[in-house]
Amino acid sequence: MQITIRPSPSYSITLRLEYSNKAGMLGRIASAIGEAGGDIGAVDIVQILRDRITRDITINAADHRHSQEIIRRLRALPDVRVISVSDRTFLMHIGGKLEVCAKHPLRNRSDLSMAYTPGVGRVCLEVVDNPASVFNLTIKRNTIAIITDGSAVLGLGNLGPYGALPVMEGKAMIFKEFAGVDAFPICLDTHDPDEIVETTVRIAPVFGGINLEDIAAPNCFYIEERLRERLDIPVFHDDQHGTSVVVLAALYNALKIVGKRLTEIKVVINGAGAAATATAKLLLRVGVPDIILCDRVGAIHRGREQGMNSMKEWLAANTNPSGVQGSVREAIVGADVFIGLSGPGILHAEDIQAMGRDPIVFAMANPDPEIMPEEAAPYARVIATGRSDYPNQINNALGFPGIFRGLLDCHARQVNDEMKLAAAKAIADIIKPKELNEDYIIPSIFDKRVVPAVSQAMVRAARQTGTARRLPKHLSYAH
Amino acid sequence: MQITIRPSPSYSITLRLEYSNKAGMLGRIASAIGEAGGDIGAVDIVQILRDRITRDITINAADHRHSQEIIRRLRALPDVRVISVSDRTFLMHIGGKLEVCAKHPLRNRSDLSMAYTPGVGRVCLEVVDNPASVFNLTIKRNTIAIITDGSAVLGLGNLGPYGALPVMEGKAMIFKEFAGVDAFPICLDTHDPDEIVETTVRIAPVFGGINLEDIAAPNCFYIEERLRERLDIPVFHDDQHGTSVVVLAALYNALKIVGKRLTEIKVVINGAGAAATATAKLLLRVGVPDIILCDRVGAIHRGREQGMNSMKEWLAANTNPSGVQGSVREAIVGADVFIGLSGPGILHAEDIQAMGRDPIVFAMANPDPEIMPEEAAPYARVIATGRSDYPNQINNALGFPGIFRGLLDCHARQVNDEMKLAAAKAIADIIKPKELNEDYIIPSIFDKRVVPAVSQAMVRAARQTGTARRLPKHLSYAH
Repeated sequence: MQITIRPSPSYSITLRLEYSNKAGMLGRIASAIGEAGGDIGAVDIVQILRDRITRDITINAADHRHSQEIIRRLRALPDVRVISVSDRTFLMHIGGKLEVCAKHPLRNRSDLSMAYTPGVGRVCLEVVDNPASVFNLTIKRNTIAIITDGSAVLGLGNLGPYGALPVMEGKAMIFKEFAGVDAFPICLDTHDPDEIVETTVRIAPVFGGINLEDIAAPNCFYIEERLRERLDIPVFHDDQHGTSVVVLAALYNALKIVGKRLTEIKVVINGAGAAATATAKLLLRVGVPDIILCDRVGAIHRGREQGMNSMKEWLAANTNPSGVQGSVREAIVGADVFIGLSGPGILHAEDIQAMGRDPIVFAMANPDPEIMPEEAAPYARVIATGRSDYPNQINNALGFPGIFRGLLDCHARQVNDEMKLAAAKAIADIIKPKELNEDYIIPSIFDKRVVPAVSQAMVRAARQTGTARRLPKHLSYAH
Repeated sequence: MQITIRPSPSYSITLRLEYSNKAGMLGRIASAIGEAGGDIGAVDIVQILRDRITRDITINAADHRHSQEIIRRLRALPDVRVISVSDRTFLMHIGGKLEVCAKHPLRNRSDLSMAYTPGVGRVCLEVVDNPASVFNLTIKRNTIAIITDGSAVLGLGNLGPYGALPVMEGKAMIFKEFAGVDAFPICLDTHDPDEIVETTVRIAPVFGGINLEDIAAPNCFYIEERLRERLDIPVFHDDQHGTSVVVLAALYNALKIVGKRLTEIKVVINGAGAAATATAKLLLRVGVPDIILCDRVGAIHRGREQGMNSMKEWLAANTNPSGVQGSVREAIVGADVFIGLSGPGILHAEDIQAMGRDPIVFAMANPDPEIMPEEAAPYARVIATGRSDYPNQINNALGFPGIFRGLLDCHARQVNDEMKLAAAKAIADIIKPKELNEDYIIPSIFDKRVVPAVSQAMVRAARQTGTARRLPKHLSYAH
């Protein structure tokens, strides 16, 4: 199977070209770029002299090799000189993508004496005397930590704390821009799960919530569980629960289209990492009776011995009620739903044909899905991926901004299943019944209704389950 | 001795008053405030009805009790009702004083695909392949951690991590506003020095420098030493070294006025905590021959047994060459310089009289100095305090913003004595010889020349001592 990758801004380059100032030159350059498969974005003039002209041309390529090929072709043109190549993605990263800003200016001694000494001393004493006020008088009210050890960064594996930082910064940007949440990245120089727990507990005072990110399974399960026991602020491993919430949202709507119920379907999940495990648990929670998880060894079943760990033992005991064995291609026969949280190209058209009536296929491996939508389309009723260039993008950014917005808004002590289910429902319900169709089961991540809907659902569920904290209003007092 | 505290914006309250709309009422209110010693700032109209008028009046008081007294007097006025009292310092703290901002907007998929997946993946791989690029491509370039355990917050003692947070936020504001440094507060839920070290080492990857803050002596010495051994980024305990740098800057200029040299003076330091110890060490480094530190027990001398710790043992062995014993009032006899880093009111006029020719008195206990300037003035030649309402304010804000600006600018591996001395010299040299006088030995913290001068001096010294890192420029590459 040939996987097509289209030109995208994520591999965008800006070329500074100098060429003879004569008719038809720009056309020839544009043709060369087009023939090489590049997409021209902006064209800017830098300088025009009598006989030479200099322009900046921004081009989207499909990948790094593709951008090199475009440059090679332009170099081959007579009378064209490539002066410089800048990579827009790298330029955006210079100096990092976040800053820590003061919310008030410090123009003079008066400002300073309130924000800092001596005025701040009274605020400190108030926080000591009335511990709940830390949520009102400090950044704890709106700040979370994004904590990683860099052990499972995107699909790139263990990059360590430095390699993980650009992703964590990007995630913090999304938190701020989508939901007004102040998120700070903490990349830990350790992979030891107990050290990760201890470190997080010790730095927790500043934060109103902890977003665990890109920590490999099975350590991530242990770390989250310990932290939930030890902290009185919510701890949420987004790769697990963020994914499970958004998948469930998409599934709610997909099932409406095919007219099936959660309580009667068979679901095959390919992958047994953090996301797959959490998705299986959330589906169990809503009553899905038949869930089979497959990893590289094949279906996880009771009695399996190869490639197990403590979480897979739990999954073996609590999923796959009919004890199916063998590969994912065997497990998928007759299934209603396939959820891929694994790697590219593991399914083929005939696997979709072997599923039950109106197959639902969520092929979420990124950037290359378990099966390309074009290949699945003739046989699947509903198809979703993790990609933005196909319909139905299942993306965590639909979940985590609103989830943490809600957690911070009610000063939640923790996240529970009721809150996750409420968030999934809120995302699904953005799409009105008359809008719902095979190509629109999940809203766009840029849909402005998502974050308020999710955060309000979270707050309601937090109140109903008793995990929302009430805070005294003590800042303006009558005498 | 009566210590006068003046009304200041740090105890500023805004009162909403409703009173009869008749001639002379505002005058009577203003008189009552004035008689109670309050300073009226702003007067705003909220509402005027035919017979009633509502105004917001902002008043600076001297302290909390004073503001209560002002309110009591206004309550006692006929026809005046105090509707509400808001405390401006508390209002400024609502929701905290910092936010984490994205440096680029995320308007659309194109932005997102560069700042986050999939484009960010290439940046991550670059950081892994070329570790030095973490200083160019991530927030490590311009971000420091302000780390505390809250064990010695201002003069308030051990307030713990929550009580310390408002101070750390204020400090981060100063870093950003004065020097463009992104500083994030980390308040640790432990007082164990080894745990503080371990935690700091583990979270260090994100940061280009570590500012230790408000950690009590002697733990602070141990923690800083261990961290300097283990990290390849500068570690700077501001209470120690920031203070020592600014004191030395003031001393350079004060000695010019009295015509004495560092290598011939006797200095008495009252206090033996973090700031006092570091100041003594820096003075030793520049060749001051006779330094006596005094703590609550008295002068620290060889053979003393009471109230010692490992650092005081070191001080006993390396200072006080004549083995002076007894109280600070005994030690100060004949001294050229007194440096107070202790508590209020421990010295009297006769102690200053007992000093050598042209006494230099730095009485820096805050808010109430070791001796009030009014009392010392008849006998001291040069007086400095930590307060903004007297001449010669010796304030750490003259040091730390430019110090860390310089450290980040050259990607320094560490801070050394040469850099601290260069910073002190740079601060002192802001004041030109013809400007220098008894009331102007140190620039204002709002003097815009300070940060550039300090940071450039730091960079020069870092280069000369080999602790500046060179970074490859690899972001725009020619083919």
